[in-house]
Amino acid sequence: MIDKSLRTLLWRGNKYFATCILILIGLGILARTALADPLPSWNDGPTKQAIVEFVRAATDKSSPQYVPPAERIATFDNDGTLWCEQPMYFQGFFTFDRVKALAPQHPEWKEKQPFKAVLENDLKALAAAGEKGGAEILMTTHAGMTTEEFEKIVKDWLATAKHPRFKRPFTDVVYQPMLELLTYLRESGFTTYIVSGGGVEFMRPWTEKVYGIPPEQVVGSSIKLKLEMREGKPVLMRLPEIDFIDDGSGKPVGIQKFIGRRPIAAFGNSDGDLQMLQWTAAGEGPRFMLLVHHTDAEREWAYDRQSSIGRLDKALDEAQRRGWTVVDMKKDWKKVFPFE
Amino acid sequence: MIDKSLRTLLWRGNKYFATCILILIGLGILARTALADPLPSWNDGPTKQAIVEFVRAATDKSSPQYVPPAERIATFDNDGTLWCEQPMYFQGFFTFDRVKALAPQHPEWKEKQPFKAVLENDLKALAAAGEKGGAEILMTTHAGMTTEEFEKIVKDWLATAKHPRFKRPFTDVVYQPMLELLTYLRESGFTTYIVSGGGVEFMRPWTEKVYGIPPEQVVGSSIKLKLEMREGKPVLMRLPEIDFIDDGSGKPVGIQKFIGRRPIAAFGNSDGDLQMLQWTAAGEGPRFMLLVHHTDAEREWAYDRQSSIGRLDKALDEAQRRGWTVVDMKKDWKKVFPFE
Repeated sequence: MIDKSLRTLLWRGNKYFATCILILIGLGILARTALADPLPSWNDGPTKQAIVEFVRAATDKSSPQYVPPAERIATFDNDGTLWCEQPMYFQGFFTFDRVKALAPQHPEWKEKQPFKAVLENDLKALAAAGEKGGAEILMTTHAGMTTEEFEKIVKDWLATAKHPRFKRPFTDVVYQPMLELLTYLRESGFTTYIVSGGGVEFMRPWTEKVYGIPPEQVVGSSIKLKLEMREGKPVLMRLPEIDFIDDGSGKPVGIQKFIGRRPIAAFGNSDGDLQMLQWTAAGEGPRFMLLVHHTDAEREWAYDRQSSIGRLDKALDEAQRRGWTVVDMKKDWKKVFPFE
Repeated sequence: MIDKSLRTLLWRGNKYFATCILILIGLGILARTALADPLPSWNDGPTKQAIVEFVRAATDKSSPQYVPPAERIATFDNDGTLWCEQPMYFQGFFTFDRVKALAPQHPEWKEKQPFKAVLENDLKALAAAGEKGGAEILMTTHAGMTTEEFEKIVKDWLATAKHPRFKRPFTDVVYQPMLELLTYLRESGFTTYIVSGGGVEFMRPWTEKVYGIPPEQVVGSSIKLKLEMREGKPVLMRLPEIDFIDDGSGKPVGIQKFIGRRPIAAFGNSDGDLQMLQWTAAGEGPRFMLLVHHTDAEREWAYDRQSSIGRLDKALDEAQRRGWTVVDMKKDWKKVFPFE
């Protein structure tokens, strides 16, 4: 009898003990979820606070600033906002590498500008070729193949090409704090779009893997496509003709064309993003506009009003005037790249 | 003591009873979910069976035909596939109503073709005005306002305009079996897109409410947009210039531009959808191509090879040759419209 009671007691004790452990584990998970920092690579301060405050207000059902999930559209520039754009736009490296890869099939390029300049890394001659020369190089390297062939060319290039300063694949040279921000927004019910001046078909092959952004949420510049039959199979040929430039005042146009809703949050880093931020700011309800200011010459680059790449001048003035959030990369980012 | 035991017994009895009820309710829900017909307005037969078989194979993880959710892209034509297109494309009714609404501001239209023809319902004179006349009417009614103003014009029109045969709002004249198909596909992890020759900004204001398809999943024809400042606020002006025609060989182009993935299922009803179905069929893995054949003159309309609206000729031959699914509206659809 005593024995039995003791067993019962022990059994009950075990049960209570097990229950207590389970409750503690549960509380632990809850606490971790509630307290975990969604932006660990951002230093504490007004920038991080502004982001977290905006997300909290837009997602808290009891907040007067609450926004239903379907309307939580956030648009991100790519070059200089999600990945680096120095010492040259990465699509520029791709383009020059393509000229070099295609050169054996074009012996005449050895003597023909603007290709000669690319083959000889003659930046002065390249600059002299101007916009017309640039367009010629662009169309030669980006048109004349099917969309599937171009996708493979981009993927093959990314698999081997290296950033000249960091000696790593270009898709490694992305900003860790911005990756965290993308994830944080998506976990808060936002849909994250890229709205970039870069070529849409240059970005789509890798944005899902690198940023978690699928092809249908990438808006960019494009050349015209044409349906053709090749051995009885339909293919889309890339034509040497500009279709759409998704930069500057083209960004609100691209947003309307491709998304059909006005973003409630927009993220950029240069004057080419100004109109996207203005368009976002002009909507009703809570809004968030952010510019990444490149202030860290040591870990990345420092440039703004005088830069030919990613110039930040008018947009910086407007941000200051209107109280938009400006990231001071040096001060606000604990870590710049994932590989640090 | 007896009283207490009885109470305990009753209490236990109640608990067991309550538990049994809960289990029965649970089983009921499970059974209903497993056995419920997702397509109640489709008659049993090879068409319905082909749809259900395709969805089962694409979504069953143990199937060799399994497709991950992100790649389950389904594209739908709109006119004649999701809603009716007789006796005239509904956007045509909108256009003519706009001419009439704008006429008081344009007294000269009383004597000026092609507007005179519209105001007098003179179809012969209208036909004589040809494509040029049509373009003039289109641009007069669809351009010259902001995107927000145009959205309001479309919504206001839909709120009052009635279909001439069914005497109901045009957004009621949609196909109940196709509404069920859209829901069934989405509940099976598909993303459903509209890919229509109709104007994208004519569709986006109502597709979410009527079809459950949000603005960002609507691909259509478009005119050019231009960012302008109006009283210090950015607006997008609709310009009288064609940007993109999303019909025929334009549909695969539109799919590539806007979605950036090839669909695994495509639904249409006319020769204008042929290339979309061919493009879909040309991909790897499981595929589903379907044409709605309008065979029911009593409940809707019967037309195909000779029709000037929604002509179904080449696509019907190709469907028969390649074994695509063809809906015989009269035979396959138990119900055509939700209001029946």
